[in-house]
Amino acid sequence: MRLATLRAAGRDGKLVKVSPCGTKYADASHIATTLQDAIERWDQVAAPLAALSEGTLPLKSADILAPLPRAWQWLDGSAFASHGDLMDSLLGNKVVRTGVPLMYQGMSDMFLAPTEDARFPSEELSIDFEGEFGVIVDEVPMGTSAADALGHIKLLVQINDWSLRKLALPEMKTGFGWVGAKPACSMAPFAVTPDELGSQWRNGRVCLDLEVCWNGKRFGNPNGEAMEFGFHELVAHAARTRRLVAGTIIGSGTVSNANFREIGSTCIAERRGIEVLDEGAARTEFMQFGDFVKMEAHTSEGAAPFGAIHQRVIQA
Amino acid sequence: MRLATLRAAGRDGKLVKVSPCGTKYADASHIATTLQDAIERWDQVAAPLAALSEGTLPLKSADILAPLPRAWQWLDGSAFASHGDLMDSLLGNKVVRTGVPLMYQGMSDMFLAPTEDARFPSEELSIDFEGEFGVIVDEVPMGTSAADALGHIKLLVQINDWSLRKLALPEMKTGFGWVGAKPACSMAPFAVTPDELGSQWRNGRVCLDLEVCWNGKRFGNPNGEAMEFGFHELVAHAARTRRLVAGTIIGSGTVSNANFREIGSTCIAERRGIEVLDEGAARTEFMQFGDFVKMEAHTSEGAAPFGAIHQRVIQA
Repeated sequence: MRLATLRAAGRDGKLVKVSPCGTKYADASHIATTLQDAIERWDQVAAPLAALSEGTLPLKSADILAPLPRAWQWLDGSAFASHGDLMDSLLGNKVVRTGVPLMYQGMSDMFLAPTEDARFPSEELSIDFEGEFGVIVDEVPMGTSAADALGHIKLLVQINDWSLRKLALPEMKTGFGWVGAKPACSMAPFAVTPDELGSQWRNGRVCLDLEVCWNGKRFGNPNGEAMEFGFHELVAHAARTRRLVAGTIIGSGTVSNANFREIGSTCIAERRGIEVLDEGAARTEFMQFGDFVKMEAHTSEGAAPFGAIHQRVIQA
Repeated sequence: MRLATLRAAGRDGKLVKVSPCGTKYADASHIATTLQDAIERWDQVAAPLAALSEGTLPLKSADILAPLPRAWQWLDGSAFASHGDLMDSLLGNKVVRTGVPLMYQGMSDMFLAPTEDARFPSEELSIDFEGEFGVIVDEVPMGTSAADALGHIKLLVQINDWSLRKLALPEMKTGFGWVGAKPACSMAPFAVTPDELGSQWRNGRVCLDLEVCWNGKRFGNPNGEAMEFGFHELVAHAARTRRLVAGTIIGSGTVSNANFREIGSTCIAERRGIEVLDEGAARTEFMQFGDFVKMEAHTSEGAAPFGAIHQRVIQA
C-alpha cells in the first residue's frame, strides 16, 4: 500500500491512497484525516486503508505534499559506514564510533513537498543534498528492543536531508550537533508499507538503488542495503531513554556504498571527500541557486515505489 | 499576564489565564483552545486574553500540564559561560567557542507537567536536572535580526532539562549532539508575558534568581541575567537558516553564575565540575530513584511568576 498527502486546508494536508500505477488516488480521509492521524491509530486504520478500492482520481504532482508535512520528531542516523568514514576524512573531525548508531535530532516542524523549491539564505553556506531512506513508526515504548522495533516500522519513506556544509563542521565541533547546518528536509511523494517492497525490504533495510541526479546528470546510485545498523536498530537506539511518539521519522543518513568511486554518491560532500583522498583537493563545488536535484529509488524491477523528489534551489 | 494549560481531552490540554494570586484561573479556551493555538494567532488573541476578567476557579496543581505539553520545536542554548567553561573542564571535551551561541535541537513532542514523575530506565545513566529559563516565540522569519527577534518573544517559561550524563559525553564526541542523554524536559506551570516581569525582563534576559532544591535542600540560586547571549540573540541564531514555527521554545541552558561556589548550581554536573577543580574528584552523586527536585524562580520582591517545578524521579 502506498499513501500520500495532498494539499488541503490546514498544515497536515489530507490522506490519500495511491493506486498501483502511481498516477491515480482514492481519498482516504474518511478513514484517517491525515497521515499523522493514521499512524496514531495504525492498528485500526491499516486494514480499512488496505481494503480501500483502487483510486480513479488523477494525481497531480503540484498537489502532493510530503507524506508528513510536519512531524513531532525527526531523528536522523548515519548508518552507512562508507559515508561516515569518508566524511571523517573530509572534515578532519574524527567521529568516535562507540558501537552504537550515530543519530541527531533534526528539525521536524516542516518537511518540504517533493517538488517544492528549497530556499536558502546564501550559496556561501555550501548547499548540499543528502539522499536517504527513512521509516515512520507508531508509538514505540521506551526500552523497546531492536527485534521488537521491527514491528513498529509501519511506513517507509525517501528523504532529501538538505545540508549547509559551511555550518556543519563548526556545529559538530561544539558537540551540540546541527541547527544551522540542517534546515528542513524534503520527502518523496509516497509513504509505502514495508510489504510493498517484498524481499527488497529485509533485515530492516530498504534494499533499493537510490538514484540521484544533479542538473539532469546522474550523480550516484548506491543501494540502501549497506546500512551498518538496520532501521530496527536505529529505532531501538532512539527509544533507549524515551518513548517515541507515533509519527516519529527515523532516517538512515546519506545512502552510501563502499564502491562509491564507481557507483557515485548521494551527497556532494561525499564526492568532495573522495576527491580529497584521490586528488588532494575537492574540486566539485556545492550547489548554486537555480540548480536542480532529483532523487528516485528503484526496485530491481525498475519501479519507483516512493516516487521522485525533484527540487530546485533558490535564494530565500 | 500568566497563562497555563490544564488537563483536558487531547494532548494539548486547554488554555486558561491565571489570576495574579496564582491560585485561581479563568477559562480562556473560547479565545484560543490551546496555548499552541494562541501563539499561532498571538496578534489576534493577546488583547482579548489580557482583557479576560480575573478568574475565580480554584487552580489544582494536579490539573496543570506544561504550558506547551508538546511543541513543534525545542532548541536549547547554553548561554551561561560560567557553566560552559566548567562543563568543558569536567567533560574533558573542549567545546570550540565560535562567537555564536551554542545550541542543540531537543525532543519536543512531550514536555512533562510541573509535578509529573520523571521516569528513567536506570540510575546508572547518571540522572541530572538542569534549571533553565526559556522563551516561546510566534513565527520568526528566516534571517530575523536579534533586534527584531525581541518582538517575537511572546512568553517566558521555566524549564527543567532532564539529562542523563552517562550518555552525554559519548554523544557529544560524535559531534551529532544528544539523543539518549536528553529525554523529555519539564516546564513550570505558568507561561508569562515579558511585561509581567517589569524591569526584571531586560536585555533579552530573565533577571530572576532560580532556586533549585534537591530533596528539600537548597542546591543553587543563580540569577538569569548572566547570559552571555540574550534570548533575542539565541532566537536570531536559531533563525539563521530556517523560519521558526510559532510555538518554538528556545532555552537558555543551565542557569549559572560565576560565583557558583557561593551561590550554588542548577545542575549536579556543574557542582561535580567544581569538586573536580577544587578537590580533584567529584563526590556529589547523581540522582537516585525517589529523589525530588524543586525549581522556582523568584523576583526581587519574592514572587514566583512561573510557579514551581516539583518532580520525583522514578524507575521507568
